[in-house]
Amino acid sequence: MLGDVTNPTGKSFGSDNHAGAHPAVLAALAAANTGDVIAYGDDDLSRRAEAMLCSASGAAQALLVFNGTAANVTGLSLLLRPFEAVICAETSHLNVDECGAAERILGSKLLAVPTPDGKLTPDLIARRLGGRGDEHRAQARVVQLAQLTEVGTCYSLPELRAIRDFCRENGLLIYIDGARLANALAQLGCPLTDLAACADVLSFGGTKNGALGVEAILIMTGSLAATALFQRKQLMQLSSKMRFLSAQIVGLLEDDVWLKNAEQANAMARRLATAISGLPGVRLAFPMEGNGVFAEMDQELARALQPHWRFHVWSASGNGRCVVRLMTAFDTTEADVDALVGAIRERVIHVKQPAS
Amino acid sequence: MLGDVTNPTGKSFGSDNHAGAHPAVLAALAAANTGDVIAYGDDDLSRRAEAMLCSASGAAQALLVFNGTAANVTGLSLLLRPFEAVICAETSHLNVDECGAAERILGSKLLAVPTPDGKLTPDLIARRLGGRGDEHRAQARVVQLAQLTEVGTCYSLPELRAIRDFCRENGLLIYIDGARLANALAQLGCPLTDLAACADVLSFGGTKNGALGVEAILIMTGSLAATALFQRKQLMQLSSKMRFLSAQIVGLLEDDVWLKNAEQANAMARRLATAISGLPGVRLAFPMEGNGVFAEMDQELARALQPHWRFHVWSASGNGRCVVRLMTAFDTTEADVDALVGAIRERVIHVKQPAS
Amino acid sequence: MLGDVTNPTGKSFGSDNHAGAHPAVLAALAAANTGDVIAYGDDDLSRRAEAMLCSASGAAQALLVFNGTAANVTGLSLLLRPFEAVICAETSHLNVDECGAAERILGSKLLAVPTPDGKLTPDLIARRLGGRGDEHRAQARVVQLAQLTEVGTCYSLPELRAIRDFCRENGLLIYIDGARLANALAQLGCPLTDLAACADVLSFGGTKNGALGVEAILIMTGSLAATALFQRKQLMQLSSKMRFLSAQIVGLLEDDVWLKNAEQANAMARRLATAISGLPGVRLAFPMEGNGVFAEMDQELARALQPHWRFHVWSASGNGRCVVRLMTAFDTTEADVDALVGAIRERVIHVKQPAS
Amino acid sequence: MLGDVTNPTGKSFGSDNHAGAHPAVLAALAAANTGDVIAYGDDDLSRRAEAMLCSASGAAQALLVFNGTAANVTGLSLLLRPFEAVICAETSHLNVDECGAAERILGSKLLAVPTPDGKLTPDLIARRLGGRGDEHRAQARVVQLAQLTEVGTCYSLPELRAIRDFCRENGLLIYIDGARLANALAQLGCPLTDLAACADVLSFGGTKNGALGVEAILIMTGSLAATALFQRKQLMQLSSKMRFLSAQIVGLLEDDVWLKNAEQANAMARRLATAISGLPGVRLAFPMEGNGVFAEMDQELARALQPHWRFHVWSASGNGRCVVRLMTAFDTTEADVDALVGAIRERVIHVKQPAS
Repeated sequence: MLGDVTNPTGKSFGSDNHAGAHPAVLAALAAANTGDVIAYGDDDLSRRAEAMLCSASGAAQALLVFNGTAANVTGLSLLLRPFEAVICAETSHLNVDECGAAERILGSKLLAVPTPDGKLTPDLIARRLGGRGDEHRAQARVVQLAQLTEVGTCYSLPELRAIRDFCRENGLLIYIDGARLANALAQLGCPLTDLAACADVLSFGGTKNGALGVEAILIMTGSLAATALFQRKQLMQLSSKMRFLSAQIVGLLEDDVWLKNAEQANAMARRLATAISGLPGVRLAFPMEGNGVFAEMDQELARALQPHWRFHVWSASGNGRCVVRLMTAFDTTEADVDALVGAIRERVIHVKQPAS
Repeated sequence: MLGDVTNPTGKSFGSDNHAGAHPAVLAALAAANTGDVIAYGDDDLSRRAEAMLCSASGAAQALLVFNGTAANVTGLSLLLRPFEAVICAETSHLNVDECGAAERILGSKLLAVPTPDGKLTPDLIARRLGGRGDEHRAQARVVQLAQLTEVGTCYSLPELRAIRDFCRENGLLIYIDGARLANALAQLGCPLTDLAACADVLSFGGTKNGALGVEAILIMTGSLAATALFQRKQLMQLSSKMRFLSAQIVGLLEDDVWLKNAEQANAMARRLATAISGLPGVRLAFPMEGNGVFAEMDQELARALQPHWRFHVWSASGNGRCVVRLMTAFDTTEADVDALVGAIRERVIHVKQPAS
Repeated sequence: MLGDVTNPTGKSFGSDNHAGAHPAVLAALAAANTGDVIAYGDDDLSRRAEAMLCSASGAAQALLVFNGTAANVTGLSLLLRPFEAVICAETSHLNVDECGAAERILGSKLLAVPTPDGKLTPDLIARRLGGRGDEHRAQARVVQLAQLTEVGTCYSLPELRAIRDFCRENGLLIYIDGARLANALAQLGCPLTDLAACADVLSFGGTKNGALGVEAILIMTGSLAATALFQRKQLMQLSSKMRFLSAQIVGLLEDDVWLKNAEQANAMARRLATAISGLPGVRLAFPMEGNGVFAEMDQELARALQPHWRFHVWSASGNGRCVVRLMTAFDTTEADVDALVGAIRERVIHVKQPAS
Repeated sequence: MLGDVTNPTGKSFGSDNHAGAHPAVLAALAAANTGDVIAYGDDDLSRRAEAMLCSASGAAQALLVFNGTAANVTGLSLLLRPFEAVICAETSHLNVDECGAAERILGSKLLAVPTPDGKLTPDLIARRLGGRGDEHRAQARVVQLAQLTEVGTCYSLPELRAIRDFCRENGLLIYIDGARLANALAQLGCPLTDLAACADVLSFGGTKNGALGVEAILIMTGSLAATALFQRKQLMQLSSKMRFLSAQIVGLLEDDVWLKNAEQANAMARRLATAISGLPGVRLAFPMEGNGVFAEMDQELARALQPHWRFHVWSASGNGRCVVRLMTAFDTTEADVDALVGAIRERVIHVKQPAS
């Protein structure tokens, strides 16, 4: 457990993965542990989890896998042949944080696009469409979006629909990395079906939102589902005691735990962003549109706080300043936020205003 | 839950994966769910799980992954370049039941060897060593054993050491698929270190022995560990909330739960094998050396029992007979076994001996 | 150059690859070397070569690649996803002699079948069809045949058509490795269209039949051609100065040089087989149905001849005997054959019949 | 053959691949076509070619392959594991023009770096070194340079040595794509050994410099050679009739044909660059340092000339202007250059200066 005299509540702002599991998830796990069931998903609980996911999203098929990297790679495997390429944001998790899994497992090239805010647009996508039909070039086939993006921004529905329309006109498929899909939905206030309708395949993240470890791949187009079971197994993502992945999904979806979790995380991020964005020497590096606050501050300040709140220093800004990433989770409380805000405020005033 | 009037206890003999989780594992999970910890294994519980595994086995490093296929492929990835090949039993899980994961992920050829009982020997290995040094041939580099084997047999320590010596003399490395390693140790009555010393890398199965889903890769040679973290991540096996994999390992290793689980499963298989091998028209297809009973019987009998006890029909034997696989688990009871034995005995006598 | 007092003509029987290029091929190369042309196949000579191949075979598209391994792997790439498997003869070049290229490049499992004579049959194929639809198994999708086979045998048209019908009924595609397709046609006396109609994709070998180094992939089904140009390029088989591959094809196809070459090689193999199969202590290990003679003889005899005629010792037969592979080429002459026959006859009589 | 009334000599400036083969290469091919030799490189001519390459470069081993993409991928395969990444210029052939072969075949990520002139520097390389040791990131391991670069520029020896020193200090290996290595040497006037000493592995291009189609991989570090033969075969680059690749190398290296070819091509590019860089409305987009002239001109002018001189329009510059790539080859003559210069001059004056 993190904890420190300086951080009175001990809550980490390092990652939504630093949080544990929601009690409803643990309760569902325990409830699933009764007697024998067939392995590999041929059990009632797994059928129920899949039905709940398909019903909530409009998907033709829902497949559970172990983690987010696997969801991305397995999901993309349904859409790509090795000579086809993926257009993605340069900052995307797929491109930066998955140790080259996509290249190794899929054999496909990632066509990374610099973006101002982690979000692709039809214009940015169009810049990567050169060389289609030219056998010397990897052929752009899939546009990969993350919702939320890696820098905490959230595509609006009109933005997503504009991309979807552009992709359809240009023979491109869409994959959405939904590791923080719940936070996006809480931000947009729209049903999952609206979001899912903008993708051919998308992932539905459980791990960062209160599960122990489970992600779902939602396949919106039935014809893409034919190979999915084989791809999942060959990509080492088929759980034998599937009921324990399924139970986590059921625990999250029942009583809208997943949405409430996301709303709580987002509310706490909003509280945090609101409180610190007015402080001297602190500004938001990206719009706060989910459960991540990207704040620019003095490196000296970041260094003083970091050991206690465990956040990531995202990038250096020059001039002795840096951007830090402050993530909230389903179990972040107002007290947790206020403690961090207090520490920043105290030091900002202390550091910045000796002359006043 | 499986259950049927004909199967009074409802216990499946289909797979050790049909069983749920041991209470100690669930308790460890719940205990791990307190407060925030750093993700990806940089937490005390994960360090403790790794230390326990290394201490029990003599391994230089222990890595947790999600399932058995992943353990095999990730473990082998530490030992192979793509032009190098794996000698394995034709019946091995790696060769038959992993949807070609090894070929896809590693790019390596499997050199499968027919065996009488699922076990390789120096002689059988030697038959696959042709063409070494010939650039036209995939180069044999790793011998893959399973302990227990896929047909329930168990290598003795002398057998393993003979293979190890042969491999060292011939420039071959050894990987052991230990999905049922605990059952093998319970059978052999030797410490894990003795078994592990026969391998360069091996897996340590948790899932089939009372976990929800976790396997460990034990790396016996320190120099092989350098790339392991990267391979695990790139192969989509790095858990973000690692503590929940680690807790399962700790739950199994504390108080020797893992060994007691395996001993119980093995004792129940022994009880089953002993009871049915003397029945008319029933014989063991392979020596019973762990928690699996492979019994040959009339297909008609198998068909009558199968819907109630959910076992796999392993193979057809001709003449209207077949081999069925009957697996016990950590939670199989004497009553479970006796119910199955009773059903077989009743039908064998009914079916076979009307004329007497 | 091979040569020896003991081998008066210096001709190797080691491989049809030991022969050089046919004069017509070299002449076509020289003729192609006039002025500038667009690279990568967008030139008149390349269009002519493709048109000749399509016309002769009925193919929808013909792609030139550098060697036989590449033709096999690139050809198969048009038919397979990584979780799909290839049924092939255990002795096939694809399985034995390509250093695991198929596994590495395609990610697919090869389901190798023992055969008595290198030839698959519907029955042999059917034995490898277990587990279709089961996500744990690599899914059989392509049957790979070689015509000629690796042991010199030749499928008859009825045999091929029976396999084709079986495959169509069972959702399997057919790839034919035609490294020695010309020799098969010379043996069967049928047009290429008859043979090609039994495949979805096949290779057309030039290298072993008088070219310097070129193979064609013939794509019989137009819809499979869509990805072929990209697969060829990504698999490193697109020649920039394509005219020099195309010229070799034109040199072979004009005036039926390719068929005449194959007829000459086959005639010389027939002459050799006829002459030695009647000698004491020599027998044919496989039917002679092309340009390869597989002869069983005493190892002592094989060892005496081998340094001079450079043939491969194919396998040991026990009892001090072995099978040797004696290959003829387009430029093997009657004098070459008679010299080898004479050397065998002399030693057989000398070695075998001192007592007479 | 290209040709047009407007292009009096018919010479293409589209690519050094539009040229045919040098007579010395064809003569060497014909000379190699005498009698039988062992296949796959075990022949005297192949040994001679390898010895000549090693002697000229200081390499421990030299391997012939079919084309430039294969040389790059096979060469890199000696240096990389799949989780390791390649730092390369964004404009590099490896990144842009090889249809994603590196990603598919090696499984490795390319870390592409924008450059002003196609050349990497220690500073540019250092920007891509973030995340080393972090299991979430593909690990930078190889720096890939092209000499000449894809935009025709040439690293000086001091530039290369600075990169080499930086790489050694930072645990990075160097691969040089030498598709136009001869042109670089002709530009630098230094021996091949000086250049080769800056790499761990490099390719030596034959195809663009008068061969029909052959590239060599030069392995500077003996320990890297151990796996090379297997990698070449598995990557489908082992020629059976190797003598015909080797003959091309011998034909180029004997009498320094390769250097004379490169000097001629470079001299013609210099003549072209000098003549047109002074014309109104024409300027060089990159320094002319080999056999490629990248000239910016009006799109209208480019469009008028392109069908006759077959050059590539490299990029659009805005304002109705574009950059065209004009390549010379070993057989480009002064008359060829002067004809193109004349056509440009005439149109530049005609188009640009009606008002004068």
